[in-house]
Amino acid sequence: MCRWLAYSGSPILLEELLYRPSPSLIDQSLHAQMGAEATNGDGFGVGWYGLDTTMRDMPDTRGPDVPVLFRGVEPAWNDQNLRELARSTSSGLFFAHLRASTGSPVQQTNCHPFRHDRWLWMHNGLIRDFALLKRDLALAVDPALYPSIEGSTDSEVMFHLALTFGLTDDPVAAVERMVGFVEATGRRHGVEHPVQMTVATSDGERLWSFRYSSEHQSRTLYVSAAISTLRNLYPDNPAFVGLSDETRVVVSEPVGSFAGAWQPFPESSYGIVQPGDDVIGDFRPREP
Amino acid sequence: MCRWLAYSGSPILLEELLYRPSPSLIDQSLHAQMGAEATNGDGFGVGWYGLDTTMRDMPDTRGPDVPVLFRGVEPAWNDQNLRELARSTSSGLFFAHLRASTGSPVQQTNCHPFRHDRWLWMHNGLIRDFALLKRDLALAVDPALYPSIEGSTDSEVMFHLALTFGLTDDPVAAVERMVGFVEATGRRHGVEHPVQMTVATSDGERLWSFRYSSEHQSRTLYVSAAISTLRNLYPDNPAFVGLSDETRVVVSEPVGSFAGAWQPFPESSYGIVQPGDDVIGDFRPREP
Amino acid sequence: MCRWLAYSGSPILLEELLYRPSPSLIDQSLHAQMGAEATNGDGFGVGWYGLDTTMRDMPDTRGPDVPVLFRGVEPAWNDQNLRELARSTSSGLFFAHLRASTGSPVQQTNCHPFRHDRWLWMHNGLIRDFALLKRDLALAVDPALYPSIEGSTDSEVMFHLALTFGLTDDPVAAVERMVGFVEATGRRHGVEHPVQMTVATSDGERLWSFRYSSEHQSRTLYVSAAISTLRNLYPDNPAFVGLSDETRVVVSEPVGSFAGAWQPFPESSYGIVQPGDDVIGDFRPREP
Amino acid sequence: MCRWLAYSGSPILLEELLYRPSPSLIDQSLHAQMGAEATNGDGFGVGWYGLDTTMRDMPDTRGPDVPVLFRGVEPAWNDQNLRELARSTSSGLFFAHLRASTGSPVQQTNCHPFRHDRWLWMHNGLIRDFALLKRDLALAVDPALYPSIEGSTDSEVMFHLALTFGLTDDPVAAVERMVGFVEATGRRHGVEHPVQMTVATSDGERLWSFRYSSEHQSRTLYVSAAISTLRNLYPDNPAFVGLSDETRVVVSEPVGSFAGAWQPFPESSYGIVQPGDDVIGDFRPREP
Repeated sequence: MCRWLAYSGSPILLEELLYRPSPSLIDQSLHAQMGAEATNGDGFGVGWYGLDTTMRDMPDTRGPDVPVLFRGVEPAWNDQNLRELARSTSSGLFFAHLRASTGSPVQQTNCHPFRHDRWLWMHNGLIRDFALLKRDLALAVDPALYPSIEGSTDSEVMFHLALTFGLTDDPVAAVERMVGFVEATGRRHGVEHPVQMTVATSDGERLWSFRYSSEHQSRTLYVSAAISTLRNLYPDNPAFVGLSDETRVVVSEPVGSFAGAWQPFPESSYGIVQPGDDVIGDFRPREP
Repeated sequence: MCRWLAYSGSPILLEELLYRPSPSLIDQSLHAQMGAEATNGDGFGVGWYGLDTTMRDMPDTRGPDVPVLFRGVEPAWNDQNLRELARSTSSGLFFAHLRASTGSPVQQTNCHPFRHDRWLWMHNGLIRDFALLKRDLALAVDPALYPSIEGSTDSEVMFHLALTFGLTDDPVAAVERMVGFVEATGRRHGVEHPVQMTVATSDGERLWSFRYSSEHQSRTLYVSAAISTLRNLYPDNPAFVGLSDETRVVVSEPVGSFAGAWQPFPESSYGIVQPGDDVIGDFRPREP
Repeated sequence: MCRWLAYSGSPILLEELLYRPSPSLIDQSLHAQMGAEATNGDGFGVGWYGLDTTMRDMPDTRGPDVPVLFRGVEPAWNDQNLRELARSTSSGLFFAHLRASTGSPVQQTNCHPFRHDRWLWMHNGLIRDFALLKRDLALAVDPALYPSIEGSTDSEVMFHLALTFGLTDDPVAAVERMVGFVEATGRRHGVEHPVQMTVATSDGERLWSFRYSSEHQSRTLYVSAAISTLRNLYPDNPAFVGLSDETRVVVSEPVGSFAGAWQPFPESSYGIVQPGDDVIGDFRPREP
Repeated sequence: MCRWLAYSGSPILLEELLYRPSPSLIDQSLHAQMGAEATNGDGFGVGWYGLDTTMRDMPDTRGPDVPVLFRGVEPAWNDQNLRELARSTSSGLFFAHLRASTGSPVQQTNCHPFRHDRWLWMHNGLIRDFALLKRDLALAVDPALYPSIEGSTDSEVMFHLALTFGLTDDPVAAVERMVGFVEATGRRHGVEHPVQMTVATSDGERLWSFRYSSEHQSRTLYVSAAISTLRNLYPDNPAFVGLSDETRVVVSEPVGSFAGAWQPFPESSYGIVQPGDDVIGDFRPREP
């Protein structure tokens, strides 16, 4: 069971969310609290979009919209470089992921988030009997995208299938098609419940989150309450000062210890954090 | 809190003890069971003495009596090389250690066991306020030994102090002097309970184990029951066939699930596993 | 340009060939001597078959015939564990490989040798425009073998194609078919000279070596002269004492400094080191 | 022989100096050009001071003046994270170091630059017979600083001696005293030429560089010509547009291929890059 966190809002230092809450995402990865698989020591990754606007003037060799990746194979709690970066890097849209492998090797190319141009993708869960399904799934990936699969995880294949099915044009429909295709492929091979997932993806402007599983017992996913609500609940807390009303955090498990701060996603749903009103809707897999 | 295991007896494959019992040492390092610090993901090490006698004819560049070390900085549960070695390496005397850092960096030179010529040393516990005491302790190390301190742990300094105080001549007295010296140094700096330790050390012939703490609430240490006892308890179990009566395992926590297999060391004691009768005695720190 | 070495003969310590000759394989990987790509710092691997016969009594969990792998992602010259293993591991049939990546990531699953049951495989060279050909090549792999591709190298795909085309039954024919298939696939995509390779493979009994490139300008490959010849040339050298007449070493570049010790493989050839007379023959790619 | 680069001037992306010149610092580390020890594959490090002023408003947990460190143990040419950071991190004062070990282990705590509060330090060279001198040198370190020695290099001990002798107050005098002390200690142990060094150190405002060796045959050190000179020489080159006249680069070996761009430091000298006129002077070791 992996853990992840996606942030969208006023630019903040990464450490504000990775290290400072108690318990923090990093704390949770080390000290198991809710089950047998709760140690997340099999690599980690952070991806962030171009810092504040002053930095956007700086010529970046891939363009300012391509997010930056930092991924490592050691446990996040031991990584000094992550600590240094978290205290010096601010971003208004970033992903963090702590991996607990379900079998594939611990190597940088298997660490989330995965990146394709401006898009990031991260996943908690698995495709069941992936070894059985892998070839059929890989063959369905757009041949032009096939060579950019660098690792060996189910998560990266899901990302490339979603790209194949139109992620950059209509993310919700593309993920619904991807899941529908994996479920159909799985059933053909006799796998009863092929998909278990929470997923986050972004293009640097909006943040899509998904909670779904074939058996309708999906892993947890939470979104932070509106900042205005939190300011009312905790009028004296400096953590919420200076954050715009649009600021949102999506997490696999709650971090910190603010009662009322987290709202669970419904079973089989998706959410969109974006400028203006956010959206939440039903997630319905469809065969492509 | 680190975990360790020391084996002395009929040559067996390392995997028999590292991977096969349920729960095994490696299982325990991942799945926390007994406390907040129970994830042991901060590096590992194995040290073993020259294989069976047929291998001793093979000219080894350091002599057949110098043990072989294999140490890594990733969690043991992820290390494919450890798995490969464990299934192909047999030894009649070996150490295994899984580290949970108490602050010093995760690097190979901080992984146990430590080696000096024919001697191995591993430790679970800590010297409290080590940063405060470190300089005084390091200065007491024999100047000829000082340059061979490669890492930054309290455990390696303890080893070099024990060597300074005569480990290779009289191990029990040397460790008693080492602890006495650390306690005296600690008290001089106002540290109430400087030492917490279980320690194993060997010269390739005998195996010394120590359980002690300044506050007399030492971490656990167990020794396996006599093989003859285990054969009587479990007459049908193949694990105990072919093991000599002299075979013994010393562990920080029990592995496997054999009731009656493990006897706790008394508080403030040492044990010697050796050809002929084993020894157990009181551990009494003495100022050098 | 990778470097590799394959040994078949009287059991010797790995360090005899990896570290002791001057210059040794490890020396060469660090100190570039013959060209721009001569630093081999992108990972390494060693694979060896079950030690001497006394060890074969030891129950190995995969059977004594499955070779042991030790692979790492750091430069071989820095790996302390490799040094330790080389001084304590003896084998009568082993592979060693030092990698210089041609683009794919530095990760353990991309390190040679690769293993399938009793078979080892290692490669120096490349498939040109591999990103262009990768999908077509991967689709031709036996679906039952497809999930066991763990990394992202051309070399591992070549191995799985050779297995698909009958490596375990008729190695020379299978490699000829594999190369013929890669060349046909390459030509279809407009790649002029798709294959550049020296390859070693073994089942634990025999050792097959291949030297070939589509442009007939293949990278170098050498086999050691007969031990009897070397004993005549160097009657006083202890290195050749105790080695059976059947002992042979195959290397990508000569190691050590014995004039007359190394014979080049002809362009487009294969060799078989085996009990009884060795074989050398012409290598002729054939379309499957 | 390590390689290093120190930059002071208009904020630029790190990749402008690490990757873009041809040959770049990273290129040079892989492709040996000038001698037997020229492969720099034994770890690397980058340290930079707080980005541009807009970032300084961001509350940094150590204060904006404490530089950020990123250090790794693999060869720099393979590190994907370094590539990502270099394309997204800009700084007006940064250090980069590529290590070739002279014997001490490849671990993060042995990678340069070293940091103490606002100060960075990096070194190319060695203390000869360091194992012999190490204890005497370590004992001379201020006891309050002793516990912050984390690794096992001569370079880090030199840094802590310089701090002991007043680096933060009068850097030139402190380094002269440090070298004088190491030379006196060396002579007492019969070491003829104890010190070989080029060193860079900074407090975030000024940059001090040193070139010295006991035998007066010091490793090379270069400083870039004035930007105005380079603009005259290369009026069409965009690399020099937008750089302030105060911008300077100090390097162990020239990078890029601009004739006239690099001026060697004299033997036994130091230089200060600072607001206003830069300084160059004679370096004279003095016994403390």
